[in-house]
Amino acid sequence: MNEQKKDLKQFLLTADLQEIKEVEEYLHPVDILDALHRSNDEEAEIILSRLSDETVADVLDEEDDEDIYSFLKKLSVPRQNEVLEEMSSDERADFVRALDEDESKDVMSKLNTEDKKEVTELLQYEPDTAGGLMAVEVITIYENRTVLKTLEYLQKTDPEAESAYYLFVTDRQKVLKGVISLRDLVTSSFDTLISEITNPNVVSVHTDDDQEKVAQEFEKYGYMALPVVDSGNHLKGIITVDDVLDIIQEETTEDIHQMAGLSKEEKVDDSLPEAMHSRLPWLIINLATAVLAAICVAEFSDTISAVVALAAINPIIAGMGGNAGTQSLTLIVRGIALGELTGENAKKIFLKEVGVGLFSGIIIGIILAIGCYFVYGNMYLGLVAFLAIVGNMLIATISGYAVPVILQKLHIDPALASTVFVTTCTDCCGFLLFLGLATVFLPLLV
Amino acid sequence: MNEQKKDLKQFLLTADLQEIKEVEEYLHPVDILDALHRSNDEEAEIILSRLSDETVADVLDEEDDEDIYSFLKKLSVPRQNEVLEEMSSDERADFVRALDEDESKDVMSKLNTEDKKEVTELLQYEPDTAGGLMAVEVITIYENRTVLKTLEYLQKTDPEAESAYYLFVTDRQKVLKGVISLRDLVTSSFDTLISEITNPNVVSVHTDDDQEKVAQEFEKYGYMALPVVDSGNHLKGIITVDDVLDIIQEETTEDIHQMAGLSKEEKVDDSLPEAMHSRLPWLIINLATAVLAAICVAEFSDTISAVVALAAINPIIAGMGGNAGTQSLTLIVRGIALGELTGENAKKIFLKEVGVGLFSGIIIGIILAIGCYFVYGNMYLGLVAFLAIVGNMLIATISGYAVPVILQKLHIDPALASTVFVTTCTDCCGFLLFLGLATVFLPLLV
Repeated sequence: MNEQKKDLKQFLLTADLQEIKEVEEYLHPVDILDALHRSNDEEAEIILSRLSDETVADVLDEEDDEDIYSFLKKLSVPRQNEVLEEMSSDERADFVRALDEDESKDVMSKLNTEDKKEVTELLQYEPDTAGGLMAVEVITIYENRTVLKTLEYLQKTDPEAESAYYLFVTDRQKVLKGVISLRDLVTSSFDTLISEITNPNVVSVHTDDDQEKVAQEFEKYGYMALPVVDSGNHLKGIITVDDVLDIIQEETTEDIHQMAGLSKEEKVDDSLPEAMHSRLPWLIINLATAVLAAICVAEFSDTISAVVALAAINPIIAGMGGNAGTQSLTLIVRGIALGELTGENAKKIFLKEVGVGLFSGIIIGIILAIGCYFVYGNMYLGLVAFLAIVGNMLIATISGYAVPVILQKLHIDPALASTVFVTTCTDCCGFLLFLGLATVFLPLLV
Repeated sequence: MNEQKKDLKQFLLTADLQEIKEVEEYLHPVDILDALHRSNDEEAEIILSRLSDETVADVLDEEDDEDIYSFLKKLSVPRQNEVLEEMSSDERADFVRALDEDESKDVMSKLNTEDKKEVTELLQYEPDTAGGLMAVEVITIYENRTVLKTLEYLQKTDPEAESAYYLFVTDRQKVLKGVISLRDLVTSSFDTLISEITNPNVVSVHTDDDQEKVAQEFEKYGYMALPVVDSGNHLKGIITVDDVLDIIQEETTEDIHQMAGLSKEEKVDDSLPEAMHSRLPWLIINLATAVLAAICVAEFSDTISAVVALAAINPIIAGMGGNAGTQSLTLIVRGIALGELTGENAKKIFLKEVGVGLFSGIIIGIILAIGCYFVYGNMYLGLVAFLAIVGNMLIATISGYAVPVILQKLHIDPALASTVFVTTCTDCCGFLLFLGLATVFLPLLV
């Protein structure tokens, strides 16, 4: 694999131009992009000069929005115009969205009238809605044609690729009437009327639908693409499943990061300053909550002075609560993200979490109590540890359930900072419970 | 939406049979399945009796593997045979895999010879490999035919839907030679030779490839389907992108769960015993590591007795290390899952993590040292806390990087238990560093 890819860069740099021309439509834009990323500026310019406008546009479609502009700048101005025209409408709009004002003006001035109108229209939609995700290259056909006529029409017009796995049937006002897949087209005899193979029961999404909803529709129905319509059911564009893969990974990464106290956007190969910017705020918030917990401990200095064993057992109580809380929290946050926690099963799940807290508290508590008794030879120390663990595990699973559910009710992302809330809760409560009980039982512990 | 769906159940129960027959191919199997799930046994039997074998098979293709058998049992035996035959090969094999021995014998006895052979072959592959995921319904064509001949061939044979967005070009020995998309087929003139529009540079996956690798290929290239080949490059089957959506969600859930100490499979609506079974083992392992940390603390009882303030500051040092370690760990585990951590950028990322540990340690350390000085009026206590935090934050980010990377090198899932390793590390090291330094500086602290 790696050998092949090194070869590709070498191939693009050195092969005969005619040879490149013959194979370039069969090269994968992603692989060419890889080769470009592994090239220095000079090599990249050479490679770009050896590829057709269409191929360069395909490669740019795959590049991160933020990095397209600098790539584009490597081309001559007339070539920039050509390449921009060949890019797919959704990628082009996303790219313009990522530019600053001057750059955006520059790019817009290079678009032809039609593309400019398209970009302006697409930019009206929020980026994380169906409208912001869709491409406008849709193939529409009329239902009173035959398969043969339709094939001839497609052969003549050679429509853009993005939408080509489904053909949409609309009336003259562009109102969506139905869909046929290319599979149906190629397996039906030439004299079949399109209306005979049209599926009128189209699943569509609305331009304003959130991208998370769009992803859920794809997961549910398993289609390769979904049409996007406005409130009058006019066909506005199409979203393909490859965009949805990206959305799902992006939404999940955000959730995972937020639970761990990283910024949504941090990437594994971010620079040191970017990483510090992402993490330090959370570390400082964590420091504040840790100080809060330390104050709880400090309140019981006299008790600890009297029985110094408490200082060793204390972190066990808090830590076990933190672990149990994180378990519940993780399950609930993921359950919400996957749409598995519904109004109907919420109460049952809450009671289950309470049960897990109670029973695992009892089991862990017994183990810990026996351990304390053997090490310190004091039955009451074991009892205090037992009661504190049971109490803290209950608090842990209840807060692990409650925190994300409450955040969601408040329309805040349930993943956001929920670990901080839960572990602050289990740390403080664990310390207070254990050291408080120890203070009450103090005469029996010394 | 909900109105519509209630209507569908009502429609299927009451509509004229002729009417159902006309529309059923345009109903979405997922919606019919929803309607069946909202029906009692009697209603479900009525609905199933009113649908064609083909539609019932499509509906079963959408059902969870574990629940297909009980659905199937609602049908008469001859109908069971028909429906099983209509199911898609990958779903049928997955379903048989989920059965116990008696059930599996029962189902296998109902399959025709060809299907039986197919299932037996598919069951040889591990379920989480490309071979275990693929469907065998692939359309292969020969490159010396014209577009017209190919269309006529497709019209005549009406191949199954699963693979129909790509046609694969093979030689007589089934060795994969290239691919053409239906888009190319329908936009090329009738007299075009298939060889002229065949892309010889096919991205394929190997039957033994792990499903995570399969998902990464889909994400990278954005294809709707990928062919699966054996080591001789013989075409064995096809994986479509809708299966990949499920894999991605499943793999991600497993990673998230494993990091939090839940079993891979726990579901948010599992029963109490299932949840206990998932979580208790991890809680007990965590207890063991917490005891290990407590032993570290207990070693320094004399120091704590002398300066009881240490007992309050101690959990801050360990906790901040835990937080910083979890941040690094989460970023790295997710980066590995997304394929963003490669051999090439590994060293740079490692150094960045070391930098984050060092600099955030210094910043948090200064805040903490100043706090200690103000609260306890002892400069040396601040110094000890500072040094311990810097050390522990460094250990945290280094272990957060190293643990998943080492697990991956050992071919263990990098998410598995990595949080336990890292927090054990930061707890023990935090306590040892802080209390050890405190013991060294003890004369200056009292």
